[in-house]
Amino acid sequence: MPSITLEYPKEPYSTHELETIHQIINSSPILHVSFNTDSSPFPMILPMIGFMGSYDRPSADIGDVLDLYLHGYVSHRLLRLSRGTKKPKGDSAADSTSTTSGSEERPPGLPVSVAASHVDGFVLTSTPNGHVYNYRSAVVFGYASVVEDNEEKLWAMENTTNSVVPDRWNNVVLPLAKSELASVGVLRVKVKTGSAKIRTGPPSAGTGDADMSVWKGVLPIYQTVGEPVPTPDRKNMDVPTHITEFREGCNVASRNYAIEAAVKPMVNKSEES
Amino acid sequence: MPSITLEYPKEPYSTHELETIHQIINSSPILHVSFNTDSSPFPMILPMIGFMGSYDRPSADIGDVLDLYLHGYVSHRLLRLSRGTKKPKGDSAADSTSTTSGSEERPPGLPVSVAASHVDGFVLTSTPNGHVYNYRSAVVFGYASVVEDNEEKLWAMENTTNSVVPDRWNNVVLPLAKSELASVGVLRVKVKTGSAKIRTGPPSAGTGDADMSVWKGVLPIYQTVGEPVPTPDRKNMDVPTHITEFREGCNVASRNYAIEAAVKPMVNKSEES
Repeated sequence: MPSITLEYPKEPYSTHELETIHQIINSSPILHVSFNTDSSPFPMILPMIGFMGSYDRPSADIGDVLDLYLHGYVSHRLLRLSRGTKKPKGDSAADSTSTTSGSEERPPGLPVSVAASHVDGFVLTSTPNGHVYNYRSAVVFGYASVVEDNEEKLWAMENTTNSVVPDRWNNVVLPLAKSELASVGVLRVKVKTGSAKIRTGPPSAGTGDADMSVWKGVLPIYQTVGEPVPTPDRKNMDVPTHITEFREGCNVASRNYAIEAAVKPMVNKSEES
Repeated sequence: MPSITLEYPKEPYSTHELETIHQIINSSPILHVSFNTDSSPFPMILPMIGFMGSYDRPSADIGDVLDLYLHGYVSHRLLRLSRGTKKPKGDSAADSTSTTSGSEERPPGLPVSVAASHVDGFVLTSTPNGHVYNYRSAVVFGYASVVEDNEEKLWAMENTTNSVVPDRWNNVVLPLAKSELASVGVLRVKVKTGSAKIRTGPPSAGTGDADMSVWKGVLPIYQTVGEPVPTPDRKNMDVPTHITEFREGCNVASRNYAIEAAVKPMVNKSEES
């Protein structure tokens, strides 16, 4: 399967690879965050909202080394573990040889793994074995810490909000009350490594292809933003431009990507394994 | 936030709760599977395809205790760990008091956590803090073993294929060659615990609601299956019924769910935290 892998913050890395990973994450409405606790043999796994960005270097673009900010449903357990008051279980390997941290010193924070996956198509071929998905999938591994600085927290909230609906922040009631800001939990993940995998294109040739009674092809899969549903007290209000433009742009882009992915094979595509 | 939690295979549990968890998983085209390895402080996290079912009790329905079968992109590392040749890191808590395994003996297999999440709407309110998603999210925790029995493997392949596109199995070239079956990796997860969270409904009342210049409401979000794209050699073939019916049914159901979720508050809904 075509894939790229990179040692995240170390030179040399390719801007194109970083862009690919960051775009998959930033275009995903939901991320899955996994971490260990000391009370269970199972990793925890939580759906959260997040984006890649750099508070320290506002001029950084999508192809630069960035941090991952996590927001939304931050659980109390995750916040407590990220404050570093307890050493999480499963952490011993950080001190020994590790494929991901190498010989570097272990950074502060809770080890977390964050995945973003887009399903772009169901790829149907002649025999059961050849059935695959067109998809874009990224995962980053890093150390999560709680953002304590109010300026950085506010910046992360603004960018999280705008990552869901662009320009939404400028279309809500501001400023935020201090108590509201205090009630929000934001995590900053210093990324150590990351990778992405992408599949596009029609089904591969297979053993059953001579049977012309069997349909072969791709069902494009994409996310649609439906007609806005206002609350009853806003039902006579025009839907504002930042929402109508987001909806149109998002729907066209998602649909076009999936349709193009259905016919356009990967460059340097190897057979899926 | 409204949620249900259950100790999975222990009585008493409610059929409705099991149904809810199983339906969220079975309607999710992609699952995120997390597990520990002995070479990294980070849990691994992989997108995979799966379904809840029971090979031992074919008459079991969606509200019964079921196993989770994982298929698709089964990594070699995951297969090796699930064969139990190595004790994975982060496994020590299985022998001590655990919130999930209680006083029971540790079952065979690799501890895995599996999450399924559907985004059903962006819920936009007057102030940044009230912005949430409508969503359905389920997670199950259990012990994964490699399915070695060929009959069970074939059954799992058939059900996986049909979980993506109903009745697809009866519309491909069969039987499967022995070598094809041998090349497939399938995992069976014996589920220990699981939970689900669901949010529906309009935005909650908030501090900024008096500002009638700010739009409030829900953008329904749903998955769409696009126009089938045949391979060039099938372009004159009629798209078969199992595909056209799946596409229509799936699109109507997804869209209707998201639109209904936009206006229909949860029964027993508490304010989101």
